[in-house]
Amino acid sequence: MDDRFARGSELLNQIHAGGGDRLVAALADVAPDLARAIIEFGFGEIYTRPGLALRDRQIATVAALAALGTAQPQLIAHIEGALAVGVTRTEIIEIIMQMALYGGFPAAMNAADAARTAFAADDARTQGQSPAPGA
Amino acid sequence: MDDRFARGSELLNQIHAGGGDRLVAALADVAPDLARAIIEFGFGEIYTRPGLALRDRQIATVAALAALGTAQPQLIAHIEGALAVGVTRTEIIEIIMQMALYGGFPAAMNAADAARTAFAADDARTQGQSPAPGA
Amino acid sequence: MDDRFARGSELLNQIHAGGGDRLVAALADVAPDLARAIIEFGFGEIYTRPGLALRDRQIATVAALAALGTAQPQLIAHIEGALAVGVTRTEIIEIIMQMALYGGFPAAMNAADAARTAFAADDARTQGQSPAPGA
Amino acid sequence: MDDRFARGSELLNQIHAGGGDRLVAALADVAPDLARAIIEFGFGEIYTRPGLALRDRQIATVAALAALGTAQPQLIAHIEGALAVGVTRTEIIEIIMQMALYGGFPAAMNAADAARTAFAADDARTQGQSPAPGA
Amino acid sequence: MDDRFARGSELLNQIHAGGGDRLVAALADVAPDLARAIIEFGFGEIYTRPGLALRDRQIATVAALAALGTAQPQLIAHIEGALAVGVTRTEIIEIIMQMALYGGFPAAMNAADAARTAFAADDARTQGQSPAPGA
Amino acid sequence: MDDRFARGSELLNQIHAGGGDRLVAALADVAPDLARAIIEFGFGEIYTRPGLALRDRQIATVAALAALGTAQPQLIAHIEGALAVGVTRTEIIEIIMQMALYGGFPAAMNAADAARTAFAADDARTQGQSPAPGA
Repeated sequence: MDDRFARGSELLNQIHAGGGDRLVAALADVAPDLARAIIEFGFGEIYTRPGLALRDRQIATVAALAALGTAQPQLIAHIEGALAVGVTRTEIIEIIMQMALYGGFPAAMNAADAARTAFAADDARTQGQSPAPGA
Repeated sequence: MDDRFARGSELLNQIHAGGGDRLVAALADVAPDLARAIIEFGFGEIYTRPGLALRDRQIATVAALAALGTAQPQLIAHIEGALAVGVTRTEIIEIIMQMALYGGFPAAMNAADAARTAFAADDARTQGQSPAPGA
Repeated sequence: MDDRFARGSELLNQIHAGGGDRLVAALADVAPDLARAIIEFGFGEIYTRPGLALRDRQIATVAALAALGTAQPQLIAHIEGALAVGVTRTEIIEIIMQMALYGGFPAAMNAADAARTAFAADDARTQGQSPAPGA
Repeated sequence: MDDRFARGSELLNQIHAGGGDRLVAALADVAPDLARAIIEFGFGEIYTRPGLALRDRQIATVAALAALGTAQPQLIAHIEGALAVGVTRTEIIEIIMQMALYGGFPAAMNAADAARTAFAADDARTQGQSPAPGA
Repeated sequence: MDDRFARGSELLNQIHAGGGDRLVAALADVAPDLARAIIEFGFGEIYTRPGLALRDRQIATVAALAALGTAQPQLIAHIEGALAVGVTRTEIIEIIMQMALYGGFPAAMNAADAARTAFAADDARTQGQSPAPGA
Repeated sequence: MDDRFARGSELLNQIHAGGGDRLVAALADVAPDLARAIIEFGFGEIYTRPGLALRDRQIATVAALAALGTAQPQLIAHIEGALAVGVTRTEIIEIIMQMALYGGFPAAMNAADAARTAFAADDARTQGQSPAPGA
């Protein structure tokens, strides 16, 4: 059990330098065991399985959340996570455009809004990490 | 316009050696313009865009249809399509397991049923193409 | 109360010469009060309200069920109902194609399947009613 | 008819000391007949039926709205309603965690947010009702 | 191609004097090709097809988005669009009430909120256009 | 880990004397780790948590699956499971009728079909267990 939590936390921090761990932390007051289940089961058991590259896992999750259209905060966090494991902004927008075919155009439009938010957070973090003038 | 249709048909045949073109053909009697829109817009305009590899596009679509849980025939066709562009069976099952996190376990269970059907169709096609004894 | 049931039944029979009343009747063994609620509230209170023409009501319902993608038997019944109140087959296919924009292409494809079934039922009923040769 | 409205209003006030009746009242300007249908049919005809305890009805509704993930204001109101008929906060969080299995983890996370809001409203109401020092 | 864009833009401006074109324009920074696909394919190819009146198309879209419950900004825009092509406020509220039967009451309640916003935008626009005293 | 599997299997067999374990077993060929995750995490970690009675858990799941409308086989299995832990047939039908308010009437109609199937399976099992004449 401990092992799952440690593995899950490590992966969560790798993927979601930005919003994801804060999302989970935000559950600590009202549903701490839900936060732990996300880390232990979601990240520690599922995302860490061999057989699918982390980059492909983030493509899959961004696609699914964009098509479902019911999980805007989590979509934002996973777009940031996709950027963190090497999916490019162009690829993310392509995934979102493609999801218009499966979840409809309004879902794709709202996912593009999520991408704008995630890209801005990524800009802010990148700029925060590179204090050199002109960076 | 012609160009979109030609490009879309070519891609559709590449991806869906199996079920996809039959799905579209099946619409010819009742909604031929819907079939054409899928080929022209879906495949000719969206799937053929640069910026996202075809393999990644199929990962995204399999993930979305598995999570949505409302498009079993199309999920089967796109799992076959994913196999056709190099996604492995292991990777498909991993995508489906991961979708339990976003669409719930029943959706993942039903997507695993779709995978079974698609894998069997893929087996049948492969065996049909390799009549050599012991193949 | 009686009034709602009578009004609802009359409308249900008008709209669904075909499948709708059978769908409701099919509930009689397991959930008779659900069947009655559909007739009394759904048809007797909502569909019979003034302010929206019956033709427009059927357009709305066919559109919604096509986009939702989770109610294939009811979609078939309401396509038959739409034909019964004067929506043409061409209009139904247009509604379904348009729903690709809001529920995605797989939902539209499956709705086109529903239309095929409903059109065939309508053909069968029309032919049954017109035994004259060459009709 | 009057009877349904009276019964529904009474039950609505019993369940939703807090937000529910305000939600319905909020519809009065734009869709008063929708507000009335919710009271008459939803509460006056369905929730007041014998055969299922009010506590069980609220468990069912909180579960469904958490899994659907498309009705955050109504989920908040029904969590308050569940508390009002004796479902404990622990039970509500358990229901929400369990819904991760059926609606996915993002739906459960967003439902936990709804629970936080409902619990705070319940705290505010309880404190307002108990002016005794140290209560 | 140019033709589709011109036709789609013209229709978009006709329908969405208000919010729709701004919604599309809002995508220009993050997903300009998605904005173009909506105009070219959605409006230039689908909405401009013969076979279904524009008024009926807006009824269908308002119904679908109300029932889906996942596209509030687009629902607001399409309610404004429905008003622009002659659907009355009464008819829109009837469509929304009817959608309670197919998407549930919370979806209808949230759609009524969208209608309130759209009606207010329509009021503001109408008042801006009629400065005459007492108008 | 072993512990979770043992606990989950025991509970699964208690709840789903009928269809549930067969559903999971059916995944063994194509997605055995998904079957194990359902047992270990779903039943071994979530359903076995204290804080919510098993009867209430089944009410919650039947409600959610009825409202979602995308998991008919799992709904049938969980209705059987609800019967196994003491929810009555009347209560199940009440839950389903109530879900018309949240998932729409077609979802409730299809859930009533699921109930008919589950009740018949329950009849068959009960009759098989009580061969005494007149039982």
